Amino acid sequence: MAKKVLVAQGGGPTAVINQSMVGAVLESRKFRDVHLVYGAFHGVRGIVDEEFLDLTRETSHNLELVAETPSSALGSTRDKPDLKYCQEIFKVLKAHEIGYFFYIGGNDSSDTVRIVSEEARKANYDLRSIHIPKTIDNDLVENDHTPGFPSAARFVAQAFMGANLDNWALPGVYIGVVMGRHAGFLTAASALGKKFPDDGPHLIYLPERVFDTEKFLADVKATMERYGRCVIAVSEGIHDAEGTPIAVKLAKEVEKDAHGNVQLSGTGQLADMLCDEIKSKLGYKRVRGDTFGYLQRSFVGCVSDVDQREAREVGEKAVQFAMWGDSDGSVVIERTGFYSSDYRLAPLEAVAGKTKVMPDEFISDSGTDVTDAFRLYLRPLLGSGMPDAFRLRQNMVPKVLKK
Amino acid sequence: MAKKVLVAQGGGPTAVINQSMVGAVLESRKFRDVHLVYGAFHGVRGIVDEEFLDLTRETSHNLELVAETPSSALGSTRDKPDLKYCQEIFKVLKAHEIGYFFYIGGNDSSDTVRIVSEEARKANYDLRSIHIPKTIDNDLVENDHTPGFPSAARFVAQAFMGANLDNWALPGVYIGVVMGRHAGFLTAASALGKKFPDDGPHLIYLPERVFDTEKFLADVKATMERYGRCVIAVSEGIHDAEGTPIAVKLAKEVEKDAHGNVQLSGTGQLADMLCDEIKSKLGYKRVRGDTFGYLQRSFVGCVSDVDQREAREVGEKAVQFAMWGDSDGSVVIERTGFYSSDYRLAPLEAVAGKTKVMPDEFISDSGTDVTDAFRLYLRPLLGSGMPDAFRLRQNMVPKVLKK
Repeated sequence: MAKKVLVAQGGGPTAVINQSMVGAVLESRKFRDVHLVYGAFHGVRGIVDEEFLDLTRETSHNLELVAETPSSALGSTRDKPDLKYCQEIFKVLKAHEIGYFFYIGGNDSSDTVRIVSEEARKANYDLRSIHIPKTIDNDLVENDHTPGFPSAARFVAQAFMGANLDNWALPGVYIGVVMGRHAGFLTAASALGKKFPDDGPHLIYLPERVFDTEKFLADVKATMERYGRCVIAVSEGIHDAEGTPIAVKLAKEVEKDAHGNVQLSGTGQLADMLCDEIKSKLGYKRVRGDTFGYLQRSFVGCVSDVDQREAREVGEKAVQFAMWGDSDGSVVIERTGFYSSDYRLAPLEAVAGKTKVMPDEFISDSGTDVTDAFRLYLRPLLGSGMPDAFRLRQNMVPKVLKK
Repeated sequence: MAKKVLVAQGGGPTAVINQSMVGAVLESRKFRDVHLVYGAFHGVRGIVDEEFLDLTRETSHNLELVAETPSSALGSTRDKPDLKYCQEIFKVLKAHEIGYFFYIGGNDSSDTVRIVSEEARKANYDLRSIHIPKTIDNDLVENDHTPGFPSAARFVAQAFMGANLDNWALPGVYIGVVMGRHAGFLTAASALGKKFPDDGPHLIYLPERVFDTEKFLADVKATMERYGRCVIAVSEGIHDAEGTPIAVKLAKEVEKDAHGNVQLSGTGQLADMLCDEIKSKLGYKRVRGDTFGYLQRSFVGCVSDVDQREAREVGEKAVQFAMWGDSDGSVVIERTGFYSSDYRLAPLEAVAGKTKVMPDEFISDSGTDVTDAFRLYLRPLLGSGMPDAFRLRQNMVPKVLKK
């Protein structure tokens, strides 16, 4: 019997999430029992609202161009479905006679797939549900890494490569705040912008370690004394020993917030507050803070070709696992060489709702740097054509006046 | 008699300022009366401190690699020399028997060259002084545009192209704050990220127009009602009718600053304050602000090939004007076709210390958009290989449950 496929995208967009969507759409159409491929408009919200695009009527040429376009071409949502919401989803899937459900997203999305899968089983409805991984945070368990992360990591590495050169030319303190509430992978990627031994980032603060403001100020002071400048990468999720985000803590101490609420993303507050601390406590004048914000996940024109390829393949493999396999699950990426990868289907329960953070072996003993193990892990994911920075040799001319 | 050449870089780094430096260095060495080429370490500060690098001892291979590296490889300075400072500069040039002085920078730097040139003439010292243009602000008079601007403009266009896609996927209000205190060219470049008629930026606020907060809120409301989302490009230099920067004004009204001082750059305050205004006055929930900060001038891996070529050529032409001409001056870029450009030497007085802003013909009557004349002006400067964004066609599937 002819079946319908439904593809949806959830959570924050990435540079390559459309590769996964297009991979799933084009692969689906190779199977003769698939006669229609739908796309949910704005994720699970689109499903419950029955807002479907008929992707079967799309040209493969345009699909290939959309695949190369960052962000979620189907639209996304921040809705986090509970059991009732998932039952609504299932009701619509049944009404539209969907036989295959592919949901591209992070750990929240995988949990949605898990509940929908259970509902179908309970109702004895013939549905194959597959979760396709995606997140710039790189925090999905079972996966060596997740599609979207390598391109965002490349942006962060290139941004710090440039910030370091700028800070070298006009010395001072520079803070760059990077996304990642619980996992520090993306912030740690800043280290891949480093080439010469005195290059920044000189200090990296991850949510995997407790952030102590006094220690931070001492680190900055020591770096300034050693290099005359200091480039710092900070995760938006840094927190104190009790787990309170520093953004919230500093805002309380200085009472600077207008309406009493402190956001972690989409605001420059954490960078500004850390800059204020340095200026007021250490007295340095040239202290600048940037919050990379949405640029790091949406910038057009900074993508890893390895990430593109893998994002495409997890979409294709999801369809193959669905068509030829006999169980629901989550597609995961395994590293098989230096560098090669392969894919397998993990049980939804193994991935759903869990969060991976950076392992200790990736973080230096100082807690403010990464290890070579991390460099070895990340470098191949950044893909080909990474920019490189070069310096003039310091052949100094003897002085004439002030000998 | 054998002569020495001195090259220096001033002001904020750009993606292509090293092209100009390397252009001047390599071209100088083609002239047989030049026996040494020095580079001032950290701009005019390096000159008065007699900190010179002997660039004659650099390999041309490394120079080519440095040319491709963003930021100022010789280092820069924020010092703004007055007459006394310029006399110090001249004293050092004389002591080191410098015969040719090339200074790459913006309008402050051209003024330094003008004063040094006068000092040399008054002292009857044989010095040829040439200013080489550079600034991401694009605010040098006489020039069609300035090296460094096209690459920064490309970054801004690509950033807004991505921000628009992200905002389309997860609708809300997005504000991106762009550099440029007096000239809005870089903020206006955001319009080049726009493709489809409903794409953002939907609103562009330039320092060439008075910013009115009530009008701003009305614009945002109208855009939200029309598109269900709103992407806004704001120049850091927006000001009220009296010329007071909005960053300062809003900070006063809400008294949010910790130490009484408000910065325009290197902080996310303006974006945060505008977001607060929208949230509190219009009640929209998803309001996000990014400040592009140093990323827009230092990001490695986003450069216009047209900009690279022209930055290289202004460096080379500076040397040719110096060697074959009989006057000091400032190299300026002229547009000669669609697209072609050429170079001439303008009197230093014509460029020094003056600021160009966007002409009225580049700004739409609404004051919140650019004209086609501006698109025609900027597009060729962005260079080849500009990314493009594609969409899925909206072939909606009929509803089953909620017909």
